Amino acid sequence: MSSNAHQESVTFTSIGYVMSNYNEPGDPKALRNSESVITINKKYTGALDGLDGYRYILVVFYFHQSKGYHERVHPMGDRSIPKRGVLATRSPCRPNPIGITVAEIISLKDNIIRVKGLDALNGSPILDIKPYEAHFD
Amino acid sequence: MSSNAHQESVTFTSIGYVMSNYNEPGDPKALRNSESVITINKKYTGALDGLDGYRYILVVFYFHQSKGYHERVHPMGDRSIPKRGVLATRSPCRPNPIGITVAEIISLKDNIIRVKGLDALNGSPILDIKPYEAHFD
Repeated sequence: MSSNAHQESVTFTSIGYVMSNYNEPGDPKALRNSESVITINKKYTGALDGLDGYRYILVVFYFHQSKGYHERVHPMGDRSIPKRGVLATRSPCRPNPIGITVAEIISLKDNIIRVKGLDALNGSPILDIKPYEAHFD
Repeated sequence: MSSNAHQESVTFTSIGYVMSNYNEPGDPKALRNSESVITINKKYTGALDGLDGYRYILVVFYFHQSKGYHERVHPMGDRSIPKRGVLATRSPCRPNPIGITVAEIISLKDNIIRVKGLDALNGSPILDIKPYEAHFD
């Protein structure tokens, strides 16, 4: 089999979107300290039942402003840090521009989740939400 | 705007696949203690450079055997636990069947990553790999 064996395309449809104060990439630390609002499509309100039992969630979103794939990048865009493979960073310039961030739930009411620590730009489409619990052996 | 505003479809192409001993869903705890091999498409070998500096990675994969969306499920398929919204669980039956697991790197050589703790079934397409560091305020 070639190295392309099992290559498969999958299409997802966003389940909501992010509202934040950041319309373009900026200081990652400022983004991570900011508050954002996640609006989930109302048809999935029932699917959120029980999420308020968690303090942290994994927010899975589409890097809709990604400029495309780069094999190697400066981590956090910081040119003082040597380039490394993009899969060893959180850069948006990955083969599949999927962003994943642990965010703290501030409030959850119906289909609206207010969170702290989400570094997604304003308008980012949400692909998934999962409860988050750190787990190590 | 309707609650469907911003709904967007995104297509991703897998960057590799999982080889494990599990061909169908079984005991989640057994899966989490097992070792698996992730084969990344060779064209992304350079994109893995530097990942060996981490002990844990986030493995993002496609739940290719998901049976479709269910609004409410028993967590871990355990009927002794009351149903809750699927987005408050890690069930595959989510709107977008994306699995995310923290796995420990056993070894990384070229495009082959051996990991412990990945609960993905054999043949699962890999969508993304990210370094993982727990971070809390």
